[in-house]
Amino acid sequence: MRATLMYGAGDVRVENVPDPVIKHPTDALVRITASCVCGSDLHPYGQMKPQDGPARMGHEFIGVVEDTGPEVTTVKRGDLVVAPFAISDNTCVFCREGLHTSCSHPQANFWDGEPEEGGQAEAVRVPLADGTLVKLPVAPDSALVPSLLTLSDVFGTGYHAAVSGGVNERTGVTVIGDGAVGLLAVLSAKRLGAEQIILMGRHRARTDLGREFGATDVVPARGEEGIAAVRDLTGGQGTHVVLEAVGHMPAYEQAVGILRPGGVISRVGVPQYEEAPIGFGSLFRHNLRLAGGPAPVRAHIEELMPDILDGAIDPGKVFDATTDLDGVPAAYQDMADRKSLKVLIKP
Amino acid sequence: MRATLMYGAGDVRVENVPDPVIKHPTDALVRITASCVCGSDLHPYGQMKPQDGPARMGHEFIGVVEDTGPEVTTVKRGDLVVAPFAISDNTCVFCREGLHTSCSHPQANFWDGEPEEGGQAEAVRVPLADGTLVKLPVAPDSALVPSLLTLSDVFGTGYHAAVSGGVNERTGVTVIGDGAVGLLAVLSAKRLGAEQIILMGRHRARTDLGREFGATDVVPARGEEGIAAVRDLTGGQGTHVVLEAVGHMPAYEQAVGILRPGGVISRVGVPQYEEAPIGFGSLFRHNLRLAGGPAPVRAHIEELMPDILDGAIDPGKVFDATTDLDGVPAAYQDMADRKSLKVLIKP
Repeated sequence: MRATLMYGAGDVRVENVPDPVIKHPTDALVRITASCVCGSDLHPYGQMKPQDGPARMGHEFIGVVEDTGPEVTTVKRGDLVVAPFAISDNTCVFCREGLHTSCSHPQANFWDGEPEEGGQAEAVRVPLADGTLVKLPVAPDSALVPSLLTLSDVFGTGYHAAVSGGVNERTGVTVIGDGAVGLLAVLSAKRLGAEQIILMGRHRARTDLGREFGATDVVPARGEEGIAAVRDLTGGQGTHVVLEAVGHMPAYEQAVGILRPGGVISRVGVPQYEEAPIGFGSLFRHNLRLAGGPAPVRAHIEELMPDILDGAIDPGKVFDATTDLDGVPAAYQDMADRKSLKVLIKP
Repeated sequence: MRATLMYGAGDVRVENVPDPVIKHPTDALVRITASCVCGSDLHPYGQMKPQDGPARMGHEFIGVVEDTGPEVTTVKRGDLVVAPFAISDNTCVFCREGLHTSCSHPQANFWDGEPEEGGQAEAVRVPLADGTLVKLPVAPDSALVPSLLTLSDVFGTGYHAAVSGGVNERTGVTVIGDGAVGLLAVLSAKRLGAEQIILMGRHRARTDLGREFGATDVVPARGEEGIAAVRDLTGGQGTHVVLEAVGHMPAYEQAVGILRPGGVISRVGVPQYEEAPIGFGSLFRHNLRLAGGPAPVRAHIEELMPDILDGAIDPGKVFDATTDLDGVPAAYQDMADRKSLKVLIKP
């Protein structure tokens, strides 16, 4: 079959690879019908060293079950399914608490940690299929597929940011980042009842979509100027919750700067730093809190899917381009150049 | 009058200073009847540069109101009062939310930020007396004074750690630090219903008091050995909540190491660092959270005082020595040498 491999920064290729096969009795084989490129794929696309490649790419997909191992019981051949970006058994103590990204099963993993599997391909072997896959009640060509595909990562991640940040009717929210996760964090904050949702981003087409998703204010400025603008919008007090969907240090520093005393920074952008200021001069003085991490999107699928199925929300609007597998290398470049917000792949 | 001044690391003196006077209509003058030395006073005692001194010391005290400005209404001459370590108006938007340490009044401050006032003295001018002072329904010589004095900082700080960490009947708790705040964090966790309370500390007399306050386990080991011991005690999973009452980097690193996925580090030890690891390899990977800061002890006084008045708890047991003002320099040294846990001052 054909699959996407990254050989290093800026070097993505679509090549022939061996077809996936059932290896464990809990595996399923899935023929992929829709997948996509993630903002987090752009981190290695910007900096991966050749000696770390080639790596199979893609951790968001919808597909049709082709085969299942003898222990798989919740999905069967012919089912259309969605897979979260993390493989989990959905039964361990952490999964039962809704923290599937810390699943304690030995086979639990991120797709990005599976060297021979990836979602930007024609097919994939899914470990722990009972825990990982969720059946979708639509056909593979449904118009809802783009929105349902966001359940595999970006919508669930934006929602996790909002839930981890404690967003509710009484919190003002600021979202840093106008990528797909940031925009869907806006949608999530709106869903959780936040009245003021400030979106910090400077790409007009994206912030317009953010307004459509529920942003009440848009701040294109960054750094000190951006901080001042958010403080102005919040009566000088700062914002209760920052949903940080970027992962770079300037976004973190901006988050600290715009936060209200007692407020919380909820991070879902994968940090591209390890050390950061958290002492008296940054977080401690005013009881600022820090939350977030890899989103247990599996925990949110059942909750979010009905709103998509009944048309109440349309998170799939974050896809502004579609390609086949041949176009995947160009899709990476378009997203890196910010020509595309998020590219849907029809293998 | 006589007051305590710090001239630099290891150099504490008791000297004659001008008597305090009413400066603002919202001030009160208080004749101090009981105060103490704080673990946080040991930070400057260890490292203060002479050019930063002399500094008036002491931020925990009980005393009798001697005079009040014309706008003071809630306390009057002759009242016995306790003062939190932070001056606040108790009416601003942050105080009303229980975050008195972020009070927005221009005169709000920490006692340590008031250059001409301090609690380790014979008397003190109290700004924003209506907001700051709380009347005590006992006599100045009551046997309850030591416990009531802990409401000014160490008990409220331990309690803030537990509340900020979300301690409840379903959380396992580990307290790092066997100083007065750590021990009262144990008492606080017990009060909030935690069943497992692990105390990390190596001073037997202190950890024994910790057991009396509710610790179910004591871990004297530190570093990797201490982390392994806590993991053993928590079925390998780690602890839900860490109450970090030290403030040094090794305590933070230990906190990260013993935390359960999704768990929270609640810091009340004033951080002696600004940068620390919070990226994918430390907090992010398993959704570890960070909370805490200077405790709004004013918010907790009314809640905690009844338990002291009716004898249900005795947080004053953290005082293991008493001195007059002349003995204050020696009290600092005894606490620095860990000969004394916490020294009560009877001016």
